[in-house]
Amino acid sequence: MPGVPPTRFVYLGPEGTFAEQALRTLAAAERGTRTPARSVPEALDAVRGGEADAALVPLENSIGGAIGITLDELAGADPLVISREVVLPVEFVLAARAPAPPESLATVIAHPQAAAQCRRWLRQHAPDATVVDALSNSAAAEATAAGDYQAAICAPVGAARHRLTVIADKIADHPHAVTRFALVTRPGPPPAPTGDDVTSLAVSISHDRVGALLAVLMELAVRGVNLTRIESRPTGERLGRYAFFLDCTGHVAEARMGEALQGLRRVCAEVRFLGSYPRHRLSGAAPEEPVVTGPPGLSDRDFADSAAWLSRIRHGQLG
Amino acid sequence: MPGVPPTRFVYLGPEGTFAEQALRTLAAAERGTRTPARSVPEALDAVRGGEADAALVPLENSIGGAIGITLDELAGADPLVISREVVLPVEFVLAARAPAPPESLATVIAHPQAAAQCRRWLRQHAPDATVVDALSNSAAAEATAAGDYQAAICAPVGAARHRLTVIADKIADHPHAVTRFALVTRPGPPPAPTGDDVTSLAVSISHDRVGALLAVLMELAVRGVNLTRIESRPTGERLGRYAFFLDCTGHVAEARMGEALQGLRRVCAEVRFLGSYPRHRLSGAAPEEPVVTGPPGLSDRDFADSAAWLSRIRHGQLG
Amino acid sequence: MPGVPPTRFVYLGPEGTFAEQALRTLAAAERGTRTPARSVPEALDAVRGGEADAALVPLENSIGGAIGITLDELAGADPLVISREVVLPVEFVLAARAPAPPESLATVIAHPQAAAQCRRWLRQHAPDATVVDALSNSAAAEATAAGDYQAAICAPVGAARHRLTVIADKIADHPHAVTRFALVTRPGPPPAPTGDDVTSLAVSISHDRVGALLAVLMELAVRGVNLTRIESRPTGERLGRYAFFLDCTGHVAEARMGEALQGLRRVCAEVRFLGSYPRHRLSGAAPEEPVVTGPPGLSDRDFADSAAWLSRIRHGQLG
Amino acid sequence: MPGVPPTRFVYLGPEGTFAEQALRTLAAAERGTRTPARSVPEALDAVRGGEADAALVPLENSIGGAIGITLDELAGADPLVISREVVLPVEFVLAARAPAPPESLATVIAHPQAAAQCRRWLRQHAPDATVVDALSNSAAAEATAAGDYQAAICAPVGAARHRLTVIADKIADHPHAVTRFALVTRPGPPPAPTGDDVTSLAVSISHDRVGALLAVLMELAVRGVNLTRIESRPTGERLGRYAFFLDCTGHVAEARMGEALQGLRRVCAEVRFLGSYPRHRLSGAAPEEPVVTGPPGLSDRDFADSAAWLSRIRHGQLG
Repeated sequence: MPGVPPTRFVYLGPEGTFAEQALRTLAAAERGTRTPARSVPEALDAVRGGEADAALVPLENSIGGAIGITLDELAGADPLVISREVVLPVEFVLAARAPAPPESLATVIAHPQAAAQCRRWLRQHAPDATVVDALSNSAAAEATAAGDYQAAICAPVGAARHRLTVIADKIADHPHAVTRFALVTRPGPPPAPTGDDVTSLAVSISHDRVGALLAVLMELAVRGVNLTRIESRPTGERLGRYAFFLDCTGHVAEARMGEALQGLRRVCAEVRFLGSYPRHRLSGAAPEEPVVTGPPGLSDRDFADSAAWLSRIRHGQLG
Repeated sequence: MPGVPPTRFVYLGPEGTFAEQALRTLAAAERGTRTPARSVPEALDAVRGGEADAALVPLENSIGGAIGITLDELAGADPLVISREVVLPVEFVLAARAPAPPESLATVIAHPQAAAQCRRWLRQHAPDATVVDALSNSAAAEATAAGDYQAAICAPVGAARHRLTVIADKIADHPHAVTRFALVTRPGPPPAPTGDDVTSLAVSISHDRVGALLAVLMELAVRGVNLTRIESRPTGERLGRYAFFLDCTGHVAEARMGEALQGLRRVCAEVRFLGSYPRHRLSGAAPEEPVVTGPPGLSDRDFADSAAWLSRIRHGQLG
Repeated sequence: MPGVPPTRFVYLGPEGTFAEQALRTLAAAERGTRTPARSVPEALDAVRGGEADAALVPLENSIGGAIGITLDELAGADPLVISREVVLPVEFVLAARAPAPPESLATVIAHPQAAAQCRRWLRQHAPDATVVDALSNSAAAEATAAGDYQAAICAPVGAARHRLTVIADKIADHPHAVTRFALVTRPGPPPAPTGDDVTSLAVSISHDRVGALLAVLMELAVRGVNLTRIESRPTGERLGRYAFFLDCTGHVAEARMGEALQGLRRVCAEVRFLGSYPRHRLSGAAPEEPVVTGPPGLSDRDFADSAAWLSRIRHGQLG
Repeated sequence: MPGVPPTRFVYLGPEGTFAEQALRTLAAAERGTRTPARSVPEALDAVRGGEADAALVPLENSIGGAIGITLDELAGADPLVISREVVLPVEFVLAARAPAPPESLATVIAHPQAAAQCRRWLRQHAPDATVVDALSNSAAAEATAAGDYQAAICAPVGAARHRLTVIADKIADHPHAVTRFALVTRPGPPPAPTGDDVTSLAVSISHDRVGALLAVLMELAVRGVNLTRIESRPTGERLGRYAFFLDCTGHVAEARMGEALQGLRRVCAEVRFLGSYPRHRLSGAAPEEPVVTGPPGLSDRDFADSAAWLSRIRHGQLG
């Protein structure tokens, strides 16, 4: 129900992986119930069906590889909206039941994508370890806690949950990688603008011609709306029809974004509004991108000034 | 005074030239007073000073060559607005006191620009005629009526006024040429939209970079506003600053034009609104340009639909 | 070595999954050696290190979720190029040791993402089945063949390899979904143009401003180069710097693409050429997109004509 | 004949006006013959017919009002090219047979457009003078020299020719106004690039849609070609077809301009090359516009670098 904070949360499981860690950064989720789902569609269907109030699912750069399915689900079925984003550093640890030098390890268990992301570290620091596949980061930690393997690659939360000792931390090859999660709810009024918001959209256009995408970007550019992400997806449904997922800087309640959305609505075959929500900046970190100072003449004040000017000239007050 | 139809008209003189002919196509001018002015600045100053209610001056493709000065006057001094346009075919006749075959003529008197526009015709049909300069089309007719010259190139109205016989008509080398005149008044509410209107603007941008003009055109293109004329003028006032005169399809009262004007206001150093007024199409003629069917999604209905849609998503009503 | 066809192939393993199936559509791979790799980076490193001649890895819409890592590997480390693409329908079957009606099943084993993609089918046709996770599609088939589970969701190739009976085919919820694989080699001259080619690029720009991406698309649009895919990736390396992966229609040897690439080189912080190769169209299927007929004036003949014209005017031959 | 400097010059007459003054700034014209023509078409036809080698005609902001006809003649008939431009300050003087205070004058003779350009000055400094029309600035000076009128508004060259005393100089209301003249010849190889050149074009597009002009500007913008003038002209020949006159920064021999011209050739209905020639900057004056530093990545060096890079990747040399 709009205005009522969610209390029943579902997230992409299993327990002990990054999605749970991301969810628990939200105070409301700490107080509420948290249920793992087997898949993104299952998590979102729980919200659609009313069994949960909100679902936390990965959006971008996830080690779980669930990005495409999240986007397709948000664009394709009954409308849902993103009301929060959570950005987590992708942080892997090597954990064991007892302290041990990594170079002494003969086996390490890991989810294949976690292993892929720590591959150079492993080659350098645990050159003799054979890597065994696990179904999830959490499963790797669990198997290590059970004594089946010497060590696991897992999330810090997984090591803690299974009372493992961290024998090396920050072992991912790309130290600045992050995963971005979305808290998804049923449609309702968006949270109030904060001055640093993201608006997510799925737009589809009829042709694969670059000209069509150019028209989309022009609608944003002339209103000074910046783009922080773009991803094309073949829709599968109709030949030659493409969908684009866009993350824009700003909030649907703002004049510039409102005008840009109307423009997109006019030129695109379809525009799905996926939510306006506060941008999550990692605390203690430098901002992820420089503060963008748009072209001159596109500040909020300029928008207000131009509206007042138009009103004057429509009434014949020039000069 | 806004709302009160003008009764005192001034026009670029002298009497008997195309400007008078254009002015007399307006019913109000037929009923009111019509005073010739010696120059465009003088005509416009009469309106500014309140001695006249409206001035008819050439805007485009004039044989009088007054275009640049008209634009500079409209852009540079106290604001005035265009409330009507009048398009006249540039129609020259060869007139004499009595019928005579053109090839028999030894002298023809003409304004130099009229002579230039009929040059090929004269070479072919009056190859033996020496052309003598006159100060205006009207002066050429007057001198012929006085018996000083055998024949004059003049406007049909000039031949009639001086009771001359037309011995050849439509003698201009470019048969489709037109002159476009503007009826200029003091600022006031624009006439109501007719569905086929022109909005004239003078915009100035800070650089001569093509990118700056591109930004101007993008503001129009994304709102489906068509351009029917563009002309750059060095402003003379500041180095590297350019002014552009634009004629756009549409009316300031319309949503699309309102949004486009606001966009221009934001990105341009200065925007001078020069009026919204009915497009004048020559009666009995084919339209001057094809009816422009803009890109799909830019009809007035689409503008209304997109505004309603934005309102819904701002209130959380999706789907 | 350029010009020498590859004989030693590596692919994203394990055996019996879609990547192997895709690789075996290539005649050279059928004749050569085929070695599974544990991860995309491992596969690509085998090519970089010279232990393999070519690697087949997923590029897009993969059920393996390896897209991001493939793109990052292609953009970030020593240059490699794509010399072929293989598009496979994402086709899942339900397979068991003996024929059985799906609705009778109590357990089904599946890779979590395969299960996610067949979720609606399962809910409808096997409502009583509990889904158990497997590490890969191949592992699911193997466990079923071993008698551990009643049925597996797997690729057709996996069912065949483990001599399972297909009890339902085409069970994916999105019937037109495809996975796109790339055959990656060390840099060398690209294969000859076929008239229906793709050029893949990774470009990075310095700002997240929509204007920067607009400039990239303009470089393509003015040369009539169409875009069939775009994906942004945060580079992680520098704040506020974005990479875009682009698939364009055309071949680096063609005039239009050459000019567009030069333009991108000039305006982007970095352009990585990732290969020109024949577009793979699924046989027997309708083309995935309509044949794009670009704007008038952008055919190859127009490019040749404009080059000849420029040469003439540079030599003063007008008219 | 290409390569042979012109010796027979024609100019828009009569003698003693700005066009003659502009022509005489050229050393070759000082040495050669100089013949006045009655009109721009007559001047250009003298070059077309071989009776003259070059014609000097006004291009822009002329007091003679000949701009439109010059453009139409350059665009419409047999090709001619501009090989030089001459920019003259529009400088009017008040001249009489003997010194006299302006405020004492009762009559002044002037070409109507000269009078219009000095109107505010006259109102302030010669408030009692009646202005009488002359056919040209030169005719005004001549009549004053003959004793028919007290004073004339004319060009400095006209006062000198008729041995008049300048009683006030720089009397034009806009002190920075200039007239731009073109020296027009039969087609031939353009003069060598100087590093500060102008290329003039007439392009026609099929629609009056802003999108069509946007496409033209994009062709220039992506190559970093700046625009210093744009003027639309209805062609009169076909309904809805527009011609644009463009002055661009650069020379046809340069890579960027060559590429841009080819692009225009492809997207426009017609492109008429009107010449590449050195930009004329008024000596002793500040440059008319700031030196334009294009966007990064569009220097000549960047063009050369991108061509070399393309050659490398076409040969498989990456990295």
